[in-house]
Amino acid sequence: MAEPFDAQQLIKDKRDGGTLTTEQISWLLDAYTRGVVAEEQMSAMNMAIFFRGLAGVELSAWTEAMINSGERMDFARLSRPTVDKHSTGGVGDKITLPLAPLVAACGAAVPQLSGRGLGHTGGTLDKLEAIPGWRAALTNAEMLDQLEEIGAVICAAGSGLAPADRKLYALRDVTGTVESIPLIASSIMSKKIAEGTSALVLDVKTGNGAFMADQARARELAEAMVGLGTAAGVRTVALLTRMDSPLGLTAGNGIEVEESVEVLAGGGPADVVELTLALAREMLAAAGISDIDPADALASGRAMDVWRKMIIAQGGDPDAPLPQPRETHRITADRDGYLSRLDALPIGIAAWRLGAGRARKEDPVQAAAGVRLHAKPGDRVTAGSPLLTLQTDDAELIPRAVDALSGSWAITDPAPTTEKLIIDRITARS
Amino acid sequence: MAEPFDAQQLIKDKRDGGTLTTEQISWLLDAYTRGVVAEEQMSAMNMAIFFRGLAGVELSAWTEAMINSGERMDFARLSRPTVDKHSTGGVGDKITLPLAPLVAACGAAVPQLSGRGLGHTGGTLDKLEAIPGWRAALTNAEMLDQLEEIGAVICAAGSGLAPADRKLYALRDVTGTVESIPLIASSIMSKKIAEGTSALVLDVKTGNGAFMADQARARELAEAMVGLGTAAGVRTVALLTRMDSPLGLTAGNGIEVEESVEVLAGGGPADVVELTLALAREMLAAAGISDIDPADALASGRAMDVWRKMIIAQGGDPDAPLPQPRETHRITADRDGYLSRLDALPIGIAAWRLGAGRARKEDPVQAAAGVRLHAKPGDRVTAGSPLLTLQTDDAELIPRAVDALSGSWAITDPAPTTEKLIIDRITARS
Repeated sequence: MAEPFDAQQLIKDKRDGGTLTTEQISWLLDAYTRGVVAEEQMSAMNMAIFFRGLAGVELSAWTEAMINSGERMDFARLSRPTVDKHSTGGVGDKITLPLAPLVAACGAAVPQLSGRGLGHTGGTLDKLEAIPGWRAALTNAEMLDQLEEIGAVICAAGSGLAPADRKLYALRDVTGTVESIPLIASSIMSKKIAEGTSALVLDVKTGNGAFMADQARARELAEAMVGLGTAAGVRTVALLTRMDSPLGLTAGNGIEVEESVEVLAGGGPADVVELTLALAREMLAAAGISDIDPADALASGRAMDVWRKMIIAQGGDPDAPLPQPRETHRITADRDGYLSRLDALPIGIAAWRLGAGRARKEDPVQAAAGVRLHAKPGDRVTAGSPLLTLQTDDAELIPRAVDALSGSWAITDPAPTTEKLIIDRITARS
Repeated sequence: MAEPFDAQQLIKDKRDGGTLTTEQISWLLDAYTRGVVAEEQMSAMNMAIFFRGLAGVELSAWTEAMINSGERMDFARLSRPTVDKHSTGGVGDKITLPLAPLVAACGAAVPQLSGRGLGHTGGTLDKLEAIPGWRAALTNAEMLDQLEEIGAVICAAGSGLAPADRKLYALRDVTGTVESIPLIASSIMSKKIAEGTSALVLDVKTGNGAFMADQARARELAEAMVGLGTAAGVRTVALLTRMDSPLGLTAGNGIEVEESVEVLAGGGPADVVELTLALAREMLAAAGISDIDPADALASGRAMDVWRKMIIAQGGDPDAPLPQPRETHRITADRDGYLSRLDALPIGIAAWRLGAGRARKEDPVQAAAGVRLHAKPGDRVTAGSPLLTLQTDDAELIPRAVDALSGSWAITDPAPTTEKLIIDRITARS
């Protein structure tokens, strides 16, 4: 069968600043999925897009083509309105764990198709797998039943959603083209739109521990994603949130579950509670549920009830003790003062090196590995008081984690000014 | 064996405007040749280089690494000084054919390792293969013997020279990264330096029929190549020459041999003679031969003698009739006036479509296919007088060739101003 376009010519057109047509983009991604457009051609196209960007109409076509490469899920038969959340990833970002049951407790259905961690930000599934018995893989039927009965499901995304994205992401990962706003936006949104949610709240992080350290670029990404979601008929809103310091007091797997359960029990660190409630309010508004305050659902224990049902439904024991590390290593303050800075990125790297994360996607992770924070920026510390505890099952991993933490905090005499966690709220342009 | 560098990181460094070290480039090209750096990674690197360029030190390292991927030839035992010529390719560019025997007749050794044509510019080997019996493949020993005894050899480049370049060029060809000045300069110069010539004259073409249509970019390419050659100890000079209209009155295979023999016989079109002599003078100067005027060697028939020996040594019969086309198609002037423009690119494409060139490197070419010009820009023409004759063995190819020629010439009343063929001479910066 003759192909209607020539990949080389499309690469040159994009390279030279041209705009590809919807038909060209649709063919390109389909031909790539079929193996007619070679990996090396798509790699060159990705790099050309890195430099030239994609115009609005190209970005929509690119996202649509990725959606069309696979199946679309359908939640229409559910009695509850569906709403999903996606975070661009941060250190200590366990928000999905308390958030999904909380929003479900308020009446929405939260289909949270998640991934595993790669690099310095942990994966939601890795965290939940610290719970004895819990399993990430569900069939579509199991997922729909759980959504209807319990209202929340956190499970592995099936391979049927946007397979072109999976192929493309693996390519971008090894060819230095991950950091392209249109490619990131289309990658995230193609999966979320294919997943079939009616509403979506994006948590777009910026700061040293975020994928998009630069705030202007993070905002650009948020706007691109909100535009794509809205154009596809998904009510989409984004919060631009700060990721200069880890969220909460834990970064790892089991220790993040532990902290999430504290939040569901009405406690937990203030920043985790603040962001969980802010995202819950956005999700409920997007789902059309305006009469329930999620703070009440948290305080009343209804969110905790949903959490327990959700864990049990996926084989987990919510009462089982979480795994404990074989080795711990404490780092203390060397002077009195205020903790003025505690950078997210080195904490994320330290947790990763301790075994909480993986370098390759086939690597296992340690359930008990990670970093506990004993102080947050703005807290008063004294010489000798604990700052961080490193946890791992393998003492040999500790020195390189300690190395990663070098220079990652500062103690000063004047109290630092604290900055707002939620920087902005981004909605579709009218 | 652990690799000292990470391809993804090098791609990102180049992408973000960094400068790669000599060690990094050396590793990259070696690892690419070994298959450790994947095609898709090199493709992304090429596109990043397209956008970011290569600094002088990177370009030298890149070229050196390509040379080091294969063998280096050694002409040191020859009694004659070696000098080579390279053209960046043009329509009707048969200059190598009369030039190599002419320069040999003046006392130099000309090792002309050539390629086949791909696209709208013909290949020197394709042209010579129109001569019955002539063969392009020689062993290194045969080549050295012929250089010593006859002084000129035009043959296929062996696969041992800069194999990384061959692999890289094939990749660039399908991934839209051919048009990058540092990648072009290093590709050409790695082969010429590995070939072991002591001196090199570059014919860098600019204009609509040239690979580098833009004159400023052609100059940039010439400067990059002269710099690389000089740094590698090869006496290198470049002529920047015009390629707006075909060279001579023929574009094809056998018909270019015919025109070359006319030049060697003391006739031929003025532009072909002018460029042949200009390049011959540069080559002789670069080879240190200052006492012989190539115009004398042409007039005396000594160049023709070398041509005949060179063809016979490679199995060809210089007296055999050249193949004639089965079909011809004449295009005439539609009015009186001066031919003010006759574009090289459409003539090249027409010759290609008539069967003189190939779309894929494994395609055969027709020996008799091509385009004859009956007038050159500046010539007076009358309505009904012949402008072009198209030649092919396959009448079905004629319509698409005619299509290519649409709008490719203009006939005007005032005589056009003719522009100089040789625009500039580029030498190493002191």
